[in-house]
Amino acid sequence: MKLVRYGPRGRERPGLIDADGVLRDLSAHVPDIGPSTLAPARLAALRRLDARALPAVPRRPRLGVPVAGVGKIVAAGLNYRAHAAAGHTLPDEPILFLKATSALCGARDTVRLPPGATRGDWEVELALVIGRRASAVPVARALDHVAGYCIANDVSERAFQFERGPTWDKGKSCDTFCPLGPWLVTREEVPDPQALDLRLTLDGETMQVSNTADMLFTCAELVARASRYMTLHPGDVLLTGTPPGSGFLRAPPRYLRHGQTMRLGIAGLGEQCSRVLSQRCRSAMAE
Amino acid sequence: MKLVRYGPRGRERPGLIDADGVLRDLSAHVPDIGPSTLAPARLAALRRLDARALPAVPRRPRLGVPVAGVGKIVAAGLNYRAHAAAGHTLPDEPILFLKATSALCGARDTVRLPPGATRGDWEVELALVIGRRASAVPVARALDHVAGYCIANDVSERAFQFERGPTWDKGKSCDTFCPLGPWLVTREEVPDPQALDLRLTLDGETMQVSNTADMLFTCAELVARASRYMTLHPGDVLLTGTPPGSGFLRAPPRYLRHGQTMRLGIAGLGEQCSRVLSQRCRSAMAE
Repeated sequence: MKLVRYGPRGRERPGLIDADGVLRDLSAHVPDIGPSTLAPARLAALRRLDARALPAVPRRPRLGVPVAGVGKIVAAGLNYRAHAAAGHTLPDEPILFLKATSALCGARDTVRLPPGATRGDWEVELALVIGRRASAVPVARALDHVAGYCIANDVSERAFQFERGPTWDKGKSCDTFCPLGPWLVTREEVPDPQALDLRLTLDGETMQVSNTADMLFTCAELVARASRYMTLHPGDVLLTGTPPGSGFLRAPPRYLRHGQTMRLGIAGLGEQCSRVLSQRCRSAMAE
Repeated sequence: MKLVRYGPRGRERPGLIDADGVLRDLSAHVPDIGPSTLAPARLAALRRLDARALPAVPRRPRLGVPVAGVGKIVAAGLNYRAHAAAGHTLPDEPILFLKATSALCGARDTVRLPPGATRGDWEVELALVIGRRASAVPVARALDHVAGYCIANDVSERAFQFERGPTWDKGKSCDTFCPLGPWLVTREEVPDPQALDLRLTLDGETMQVSNTADMLFTCAELVARASRYMTLHPGDVLLTGTPPGSGFLRAPPRYLRHGQTMRLGIAGLGEQCSRVLSQRCRSAMAE
C-alpha cells in the first residue's frame, strides 16, 4: 500500500496510490495519515478497502509529507561501507543524530537554502516510519515496529554543520532540509529493505548510486540500537544513512546551486524531485 | 498566569494555578494547553477568566509536561559566562543542539537513567516556550514570540554524549531526560528573563546557583539566532543553557546515583523535584 497526503501545505488530505498509479482519496476512511493510522490493525483495515472504489483525485496535486505528526527524526551518519571507508574509520556503533521535524517537506517541494548558506549538500536515504512503540527492542524483532518505508533527502549545509560549534544540528535542521516521500510504502511491499537500489541525480548527472545491501548497520540494527537510547513512537522517522557521492566528500567538493534539480529514487518507493532555491536569490525566482 | 497540565501521563487535563496557589481545572475553556493555546489572543482570553470561579482540583495530582504537542526542543550549550569560561573558549555564536521531544516528562516524574548509563548529569535551565512562529526574527522583537517560561532540567548521560560518536544526541535524548515545568508561566509575569535566580540541589547539597543575568547570549538573542537556522513554531521549547556546577565539569566529576533527588528552582517559576532511578536497579525500587 502506498499512502500519501495530498493538497496544500497544512491542509493535506489522506490518500493512496492504487495499482494503476491513480491517486485516490481516503478521507472517508481516515482523518489523516498520522501516528494512530500506522498501528498494524489500522493499516490492515485500510488494506481491506477496494482501492478502485475510492474517489480518484483529479489533476496532479502537491504531495505533502506522507505522515502527519512526526514526533522526531533520528538519522544515522556514515552508514554505508563505501562512504564510511572513504577517509573515515568504520564506527563500531551507528552514529545517530536528530533532525528537527520542522525541516520536513513534501517530495516535490522546493528545497530552500537559508541566507548565508554556501555549502548545501544532498543525501539520498531510505527512511523508516515507526508504526509500533519500540524501546530496547532486539534486532530480530525490530522490523515488526516499522510501518513502512519512504525516500528521504537528508539535506545539509556543511558550513553550518561543521563550522558553527561542536554539534551538527544547525546544518541539518533548516526548513525544507528533509523532503520525505512521495509515498509511505507499507512494509508488506518491501520484503527485504536491504536489497533496494537507490540513486540521486543533480541536473541529470548521477551523484549517488548504490544499494541498501551496502549499509553498515541494517535497518533492523538501527531500530534496535536507536531504541536503546530513546523510545521510538509511532510516526517517528528513522533515516538510515547515505551512500557515497554527497558533495562534501567529492574531490573537489561540490555544493548545491540556485536553480538546480535533485532527483532521488529508491526501488519501489517512487521518486522525489526537488528544485533548489538559494534565498539570496529569492526575488529572482518565481515560486 | 501559571498554566499546567495535570493527571496521569497521556491523559493530562489543562489547569492553572491561581493567586492562592490552588490548582483549578480549565477543561471547560480549552481542550488542552498546546501550540494553538499559546497564541497571544488565546492566552489573553484565558487571562480574562475569573480564576477563583474555576473548579478547584482536589488532592495533589501528577503534573505533566505543561505544553502538549511540543514540536522540537532546541537547546543552547555553554551559555553562562562562568561555565563557558571554565576551560572552554567563549563561543562567538550560541552552541545549539536538539533534544528529542520523547525525552519530556513532568516536573515531579522520576528521571530514569537507561541501562549502561554511568555518567548521568544535571543541568538547571530557563526554558522558553514559543507562542508565535519565529523565522529570522530580530533580537529587538524576539521575545514577542515567547508565550512563557518554565524550568527545565537538561539531563545528560556524558558517556553517551561524548564517547559514542561525534554527535551529542545519544546522551541528551533518553526518555525522561527533559523534565519541564511545573508550570508554564506566561510572559507578563516575567518582566525581565535576564534577572532570575536559579539553583539546583542534589540530595539537599547545592550544586548550581546563579542568575540568568550571567547568560552569554540573552533569551532574545537565542530566539533570534535559532530562528535563523530553523523556524520556531508555537509549542517549540528553547533551553537557554546551564550555569556552572553540573557534574562533569566538577573536580572531581560527580554523577547521578540511583535514589538521589534533584530539586530545581527558578525565581517565580516554581520548583521541580525529580528522583533518580538507575534502570540497572529497576526491580529494587518501588515506583
